[in-house]
Amino acid sequence: MTSYDDGNIFAKILRGEIPSHRVYEDADTVAFMDVMPQGEGHLLVVPKAPSRNLLDASPETLAKLLPVVQKLARAAKTAFAADGVTILQFNEQAAGQTVFHLHVHIVPRFEGVPLRPHSGTMEKPEILAANAEKVRAALSAG
Amino acid sequence: MTSYDDGNIFAKILRGEIPSHRVYEDADTVAFMDVMPQGEGHLLVVPKAPSRNLLDASPETLAKLLPVVQKLARAAKTAFAADGVTILQFNEQAAGQTVFHLHVHIVPRFEGVPLRPHSGTMEKPEILAANAEKVRAALSAG
Repeated sequence: MTSYDDGNIFAKILRGEIPSHRVYEDADTVAFMDVMPQGEGHLLVVPKAPSRNLLDASPETLAKLLPVVQKLARAAKTAFAADGVTILQFNEQAAGQTVFHLHVHIVPRFEGVPLRPHSGTMEKPEILAANAEKVRAALSAG
Repeated sequence: MTSYDDGNIFAKILRGEIPSHRVYEDADTVAFMDVMPQGEGHLLVVPKAPSRNLLDASPETLAKLLPVVQKLARAAKTAFAADGVTILQFNEQAAGQTVFHLHVHIVPRFEGVPLRPHSGTMEKPEILAANAEKVRAALSAG
């Protein structure tokens, strides 16, 4: 129930077995577009180290994660001219976790626009590609 | 718009000017019960260093924050025998931020029980006190 299974989709993305719209990578972390966005520009930040979720992650993984989340939250806010940013992180199915590799959701927010449901509609690949390019440009600029 | 105002309610709690149901404190961080819980045992983790939200926090503050969130998420899951834990962090009003001092929400989750609305109903002080004691006991145990 609480173990790590490396057949999960994010492990496959990290191993390059499945493509993603990647916007950022460093020695410990990867970030890519969520294919079922809860809002325009919804990103995922994923540590490379295997852990099921926040509850079993190492302190070293956690210490490195939030500074990267900040960097990408700033870039996403700029890239989409957002009014705010919501950070979501789900642990276990009861909390909404659907992929069992630790990940942090970054969702740009706009005044008066509610979050769309989690695991809702699949976004078109060309939209994801264009949004990824906007985030990369914001990261480069800033 | 994006500056820090030390008249916010969490700054007052950190200075001891307003009481809180505190469950944890270290050199850099305080945690206490949310008075308008979105679920049973809803906690807030608050860095002592002043920042408006995630977007302007220092890397040092962020590196220390998530390990403490993990510690408290584990304790809350144990304390309330929860099935999962949702982590929420809001940046700017469009994202649901209502107090402009960086804070992380930890909400224990139970199968089939949806999150209550943010900034909903004020919980009874005796319930908050009893829940804080459960979290403190879980932290002490482990």
